Amino acid sequence: MAASTPIPTIYLGAIVHSTSLTTLEICPNAAIGVDSSGMIAFIEKENVSTISDVQFLQNPQNQTTWSHARIITLHGHGFFFPGFIDTHNHAPQHPNTGLFGKTTLLDWLQTYTFPMEASFSDLARAKRIYQNFVGRTLSHGTTTCAYYATIHVPATNLLADICLQRGQRALVGRVCMDSELSPEDYRDASVSSSVADSVASIAYIRSIDEAGAIVRPIVTPRFAPSCTSECLRAMGAVAKRHQVFVQTHISENKSEVELVKTLFPLSRDYAHVYDSHGILGERTILAHAVHLTPQERATILARKAKISHCPASNTAITSGCCPVRSLLDEGHTIGLGTDVSGGFSPSILENVRQAIWVSRHLSLQTGKEADKLSTEEALYLATRGGAKVVGLEGKVGGFEVGMEWDAQMVKLGEVDEAEDRFESGPVDIFGWESWSEMVEKWVYSGDDRNTVAVWVRGRLVHRTGRFEGSGEV
Amino acid sequence: MAASTPIPTIYLGAIVHSTSLTTLEICPNAAIGVDSSGMIAFIEKENVSTISDVQFLQNPQNQTTWSHARIITLHGHGFFFPGFIDTHNHAPQHPNTGLFGKTTLLDWLQTYTFPMEASFSDLARAKRIYQNFVGRTLSHGTTTCAYYATIHVPATNLLADICLQRGQRALVGRVCMDSELSPEDYRDASVSSSVADSVASIAYIRSIDEAGAIVRPIVTPRFAPSCTSECLRAMGAVAKRHQVFVQTHISENKSEVELVKTLFPLSRDYAHVYDSHGILGERTILAHAVHLTPQERATILARKAKISHCPASNTAITSGCCPVRSLLDEGHTIGLGTDVSGGFSPSILENVRQAIWVSRHLSLQTGKEADKLSTEEALYLATRGGAKVVGLEGKVGGFEVGMEWDAQMVKLGEVDEAEDRFESGPVDIFGWESWSEMVEKWVYSGDDRNTVAVWVRGRLVHRTGRFEGSGEV
Repeated sequence: MAASTPIPTIYLGAIVHSTSLTTLEICPNAAIGVDSSGMIAFIEKENVSTISDVQFLQNPQNQTTWSHARIITLHGHGFFFPGFIDTHNHAPQHPNTGLFGKTTLLDWLQTYTFPMEASFSDLARAKRIYQNFVGRTLSHGTTTCAYYATIHVPATNLLADICLQRGQRALVGRVCMDSELSPEDYRDASVSSSVADSVASIAYIRSIDEAGAIVRPIVTPRFAPSCTSECLRAMGAVAKRHQVFVQTHISENKSEVELVKTLFPLSRDYAHVYDSHGILGERTILAHAVHLTPQERATILARKAKISHCPASNTAITSGCCPVRSLLDEGHTIGLGTDVSGGFSPSILENVRQAIWVSRHLSLQTGKEADKLSTEEALYLATRGGAKVVGLEGKVGGFEVGMEWDAQMVKLGEVDEAEDRFESGPVDIFGWESWSEMVEKWVYSGDDRNTVAVWVRGRLVHRTGRFEGSGEV
Repeated sequence: MAASTPIPTIYLGAIVHSTSLTTLEICPNAAIGVDSSGMIAFIEKENVSTISDVQFLQNPQNQTTWSHARIITLHGHGFFFPGFIDTHNHAPQHPNTGLFGKTTLLDWLQTYTFPMEASFSDLARAKRIYQNFVGRTLSHGTTTCAYYATIHVPATNLLADICLQRGQRALVGRVCMDSELSPEDYRDASVSSSVADSVASIAYIRSIDEAGAIVRPIVTPRFAPSCTSECLRAMGAVAKRHQVFVQTHISENKSEVELVKTLFPLSRDYAHVYDSHGILGERTILAHAVHLTPQERATILARKAKISHCPASNTAITSGCCPVRSLLDEGHTIGLGTDVSGGFSPSILENVRQAIWVSRHLSLQTGKEADKLSTEEALYLATRGGAKVVGLEGKVGGFEVGMEWDAQMVKLGEVDEAEDRFESGPVDIFGWESWSEMVEKWVYSGDDRNTVAVWVRGRLVHRTGRFEGSGEV
């Protein structure tokens, strides 16, 4: 983690972030001071055009402390936005992005997923893919990501190394799977080896980042059909003993739900499988949650487990429409997940849109206007919601004094730019748009070209040619 | 149209195009010769690595004729693909792209659309927006576009001028709307002025491109609720008298369908409104067609009218899921439309994906696997299907001798490129992918960065910095 100590920096320009599920705060002329530990030291939300307008610096002591601060000013149309949080992502499946044909979950796993993941026994191959992919997710503004790796300890540890080196916050999980659903050459040999490998990876990740400031281990039983009852129970115990998060899948697809009924005849339902094996708690991230029964929803809520909504994936492999609005009304904690490569994009911004589209389709089915997610709600899920899911509430996902500077600089395109090559990205700003319209244009037509710089804990971790500030990544 | 005579050119590299609704032909080592009129003179689909492999040039006479031909070779991972055909697009709404909130059709029109369109009485403003937008659609590989303009003759004619100058094939329609649904300051004053203005625009567009080789006029009654019965009938007569295409909307939204029932109590249904006013024929393009009854489908089929499917729009403003697969089974002719700005993207590639997503959601509702569109089918709609819709079947939409060279050069990204800036676009090619996998990666994660050059009738009309061939746009 060489060169990772950030210089105190004052960011000048518009800031946009969620302050609640339904409120997006837009401050066109703001300043944020970030200290050398990457923490937000002060925020001024109004009337800042230049550094001389910053009230905080009028205080002589502050002036002295911040005299050597770097100043990064956002010119043109754009704003600082919190880094995105991807609560569910299979990094090794990145080379399969866009490949699914007409498959659904269970045949998709056999056709595309397991063969690709099995190849991560080759560490050189794993390195090439993981380096590319961590760079990709950073380029889309993802500052925190909950990754499934593969069953291989060395490749899993390598993914953690890469995240730490690149400065992306990550939960990195060695995948546990010991049941016969998985191919013989791609599953854990026994429950004891599954436990030993998981513990080895936890120990390694803790050894490179003891405090878990950037990378943290996460226990990752793939999903109920991939695990024997013994293995599930053992994983619940490992998570408890080592005080780490757990991630798994639940109720993504109707055939999967039926399969779980067959495989776990003693369990009342899918949620109960996890609950009865010690997997369900407030440090548990459940991906999908599309077809839950009311009873399962109550169980998950009672255990305070978290939900990762993966709309692009749910649409692409025809899983269903997760009823996000009603889950929110019930009090569930929800973030967004790309679910690469069931999901066809590593971008959380794309998944903000997809979450809205899925909610529209649900509304078409139910006839209920209330099932539609608003832009504000979807952005909340992508930031503060995600932070709650991965246990970083109050630390990242918004801009407040005491929170850490996980942020992206968003720049939009000017219509009258040169030559119709549109290199500044897909958003056209004509100049008459209101601030909320500029944000909507970004949400509905922006992409990674608009994310010109990304910081984690104050460290610049990605930049494009359009970023005008200084600093090496 | 200065500098528009293309030099005879031989394109070397992979070609990919639809040969039928369900078949995508992929020829990794092909050559296509395009003559100075922009027409495809020869195609060789196999075994061409360099120009010396081209059999056609072994013939001495051909060798002489083509001795001065330019050679454009596609290096790296990529292929030539037919230009996209956008069968439904409101160019003046481009500045509203991404702005819709939770509105649906009727309130969306009043809130966003009519005020924006009304502003096109200002020709300078129209010029700025249309120049930007025609450049945008070209940059996404759209070589033919059916445009709705506004009610203003000068701005409509300007759009035609810009399309002709930039070399984009276009059907350009002055919008007719004379009913009280529209604001007082944005509607035709009378049926006679509506006819006069429409005829004036038809005459102008014919005057700048008599043969309609690039731009053609199209009669454009907005939709039934915007027009009085007299106006609709008059527009049907104008289209017949001047032998031009007609475009309008049908059955996009349930409230709209109810409104039409109220406004046209003598008509059996929405399709019958158009049929009984002389609007429905084989030169008619009907956008949306989401909620048609079996009887309406039969009427449209009997009249050989064409359908423009606009999936992004239908999802964004919660209109519904057009049953494309079953319409195709019945024999309907269908293309894709972006429907900017009900649709949130000017990209037909995005709408290829959205068409697939909408079909997945329909399949989730009906439980029918047969409702799912395949990748091949969606690409067919985007090219050959669209060509049929706009009356260019056999001329564009595929690669055959005698067809015109409306094409895009698609280049994909190499994983091991420099510096993680991902300037070559969103698709990562690792090198082990099959050809069909490369095409799928483009379809499901590509964007305008992958469209590095675009030709219409042999003329280079767009290029990015990654295009290695020569030629000024």
